[in-house]
Amino acid sequence: MSVTHSGKSSSVIKSSLIDADGGILVNRVVPEAERGLKAVEAGSMPKVRLTKIDLQWVHVISEGWASPLKGFMKEDEYLQSLHFNIMRMKDGSIVNMSLPIVLAIDDKVKEQIGSSPDVALIGPTGGLIGILRSIEIYKHNKEERIARTWGTTAPGLPYVEEVITPAGNWLIGGDLEVLEPIKYNDGLDRYRLSPQQLRREFDRRQADAVFAFQLRNPVHNGHALLMNDTRRRLLEMGYKNPVLLLHPLGGFTKADDVPLNVRMEQHSKVLEDGVLDPETTIVSIFPSPMHYAGPTEVQWHAKARINAGANFYIVGRDPAGMGHPTEKRDLYDPDHGKRVLSMAPGLEKLNILPFRVAAYDMVEKKMAFFDPSRAQDFLFISGTKMRTYARNGENPPDGFMCPGGWEVLVKYYKTLQAEEATQQAVLSS
Amino acid sequence: MSVTHSGKSSSVIKSSLIDADGGILVNRVVPEAERGLKAVEAGSMPKVRLTKIDLQWVHVISEGWASPLKGFMKEDEYLQSLHFNIMRMKDGSIVNMSLPIVLAIDDKVKEQIGSSPDVALIGPTGGLIGILRSIEIYKHNKEERIARTWGTTAPGLPYVEEVITPAGNWLIGGDLEVLEPIKYNDGLDRYRLSPQQLRREFDRRQADAVFAFQLRNPVHNGHALLMNDTRRRLLEMGYKNPVLLLHPLGGFTKADDVPLNVRMEQHSKVLEDGVLDPETTIVSIFPSPMHYAGPTEVQWHAKARINAGANFYIVGRDPAGMGHPTEKRDLYDPDHGKRVLSMAPGLEKLNILPFRVAAYDMVEKKMAFFDPSRAQDFLFISGTKMRTYARNGENPPDGFMCPGGWEVLVKYYKTLQAEEATQQAVLSS
Repeated sequence: MSVTHSGKSSSVIKSSLIDADGGILVNRVVPEAERGLKAVEAGSMPKVRLTKIDLQWVHVISEGWASPLKGFMKEDEYLQSLHFNIMRMKDGSIVNMSLPIVLAIDDKVKEQIGSSPDVALIGPTGGLIGILRSIEIYKHNKEERIARTWGTTAPGLPYVEEVITPAGNWLIGGDLEVLEPIKYNDGLDRYRLSPQQLRREFDRRQADAVFAFQLRNPVHNGHALLMNDTRRRLLEMGYKNPVLLLHPLGGFTKADDVPLNVRMEQHSKVLEDGVLDPETTIVSIFPSPMHYAGPTEVQWHAKARINAGANFYIVGRDPAGMGHPTEKRDLYDPDHGKRVLSMAPGLEKLNILPFRVAAYDMVEKKMAFFDPSRAQDFLFISGTKMRTYARNGENPPDGFMCPGGWEVLVKYYKTLQAEEATQQAVLSS
Repeated sequence: MSVTHSGKSSSVIKSSLIDADGGILVNRVVPEAERGLKAVEAGSMPKVRLTKIDLQWVHVISEGWASPLKGFMKEDEYLQSLHFNIMRMKDGSIVNMSLPIVLAIDDKVKEQIGSSPDVALIGPTGGLIGILRSIEIYKHNKEERIARTWGTTAPGLPYVEEVITPAGNWLIGGDLEVLEPIKYNDGLDRYRLSPQQLRREFDRRQADAVFAFQLRNPVHNGHALLMNDTRRRLLEMGYKNPVLLLHPLGGFTKADDVPLNVRMEQHSKVLEDGVLDPETTIVSIFPSPMHYAGPTEVQWHAKARINAGANFYIVGRDPAGMGHPTEKRDLYDPDHGKRVLSMAPGLEKLNILPFRVAAYDMVEKKMAFFDPSRAQDFLFISGTKMRTYARNGENPPDGFMCPGGWEVLVKYYKTLQAEEATQQAVLSS
């Protein structure tokens, strides 16, 4: 590891091999020369079929986003994650690990595995993806997992309904080997940079600070204000070349969120329209699925970005939150995410940038930091409200979002409505 | 602090002022000379009325069982407890704190407190108990608290139904001052030794190892076998004078558990009958209420005993567990308590003594360590089964419990049935 210049954070972002905890960044993709042999070996192993979302987790683990985790969690790792949001390493050090990263199987697959120490992982379309070695199979207590991860067991949690409820009653942990880098062939793979690739890109741009912005929504001018203001503050702090990692989440999201391809198009427009500076911004896709688990999940979001070389993390109101699925309130206290993140064990070195709430200033006709002394001048435009505008073909107030970005959303909702109308017509014919 | 002899654990048990984490053991009982003045001061403060169980927690905090916690939790302490089972101290060190130790108030009391920085605590019978200073009031999200503490929100959890469901929607944290040591005047106060008193007693007996046994049930010969075997093992390890802290839980227990006074009488008989050696056993009451929160609660049970000077902690099958309130299964995996305890942050120095499962050996006609090679010879007698025997006036197999101890239980259930019959007669007359 060569450190070519001094500075408090240079060692973090100058090495593409070191993870958030100072260990070697996990890379579970097998070298090309070994693939043939591994494929033959896998042929004689019991098979575990992956769902689309299981495959997203394979992607996450294989590239080291969850480093030092080397595969799907074994029971001791799972229990530590569930109870303490950490994993203790062999040397006694602790690392943050707030979400259980697990693979479920049903009774039949468990029986087929028998006492085999290794299993082959088969993708959703039938191809060989990789191998899980030195496996351990243990009970999948769904109720406990849900309660401890989300702080509720109310019906209607998107990840629970999509992933956990239909899953088997066993979890299988082990060390992962992936035969080839995971690709989706959806035209967006070029945006899916691994932590190592991102670190190299930060080095190439000679970044001396990297600030990450996690999002799963279109970028409006409030977000942009915040990101640009963060850059200004980092320059004031003495950094010469702060780089923004605009890092939309690319895995599972709930049905009413804007799909990834539309968001990526919208983000491109935001850069084209000059709302964000392309010279100092890297747009890349974070392959993780979304849990909507608020204070528990925001730790994962931050930890993964540190693994990718970010040393500043922006956290706002109610990160990874959503409405309570059965009650008329936010599922989480909007302040808890920030507070829990700032106290999280294993993330002590994280530089958290407090989010100043932005809202639409009806006097200045632009997104601005909320000023409580003239609260009546501000309009809060929620994600739901934004989607309603776009769905109804209405324009949001001037200055809420750059026109190019807004057009992308309007077009998406028009197409969606046309599709819905067609489906309706088919159903009623 | 004077250490009069060497040995790896002597420093822990030779100082009656040092808590589990090396800090000063919290004692929140006001010196006698200051009580009058404090009482006058409290007279002008807003009042918070305590329930019986709130008072048990005041007792716990005031004597330092939860040290370094100095009062009911403020929100940052609460969030750390809920998410990480720890609290981070100002010096960066972490201590284990797995249960939220909180005081709930309702809207009306919150309004009465207004912006007062301090409140007076009033006992269930109207007397002044103490003061809570530098208070902080925050939302009591019961659903999240329950889900994250128990790993379920199923109806029928005893502590939830007794304490949380009827409680107010706000929590009030602050630094506790108690005017006088908490007493119950139930004839058992002499058994309620504080952590400091216990530490002095261990010193007086020149203990060089203290092993704690938490229980909320009558002692049967399986327990006794385990405790005696532990002593034997400690002697083998080179300790000269291991002392057993037989430490029944004295706070809230669920309705079908055997009440404290009956248990204490039963424990006395066990010592009288010579099943445990009075010379090397201290029977004392642990004032905490019971949560029945399995792996989360066992950490609290261990941490509190270390604060009282124990350096070995016996943990068995399914500690602090119970049946699932709505499903026909154990609420927790019986192995998880031991595993979670052994990995718990802030308890790294704890010496955990693994429980070997004891059962009734029908060939040898005594309680013995279970031998899987002749499983058919063993009979497992659960707490429920034991209570059924006693309730029906049946005798358990010879050698299950010492006769004196068993008589106490039979007498209790006879009285209970007579009372139930009387109540039934009154209701139907």
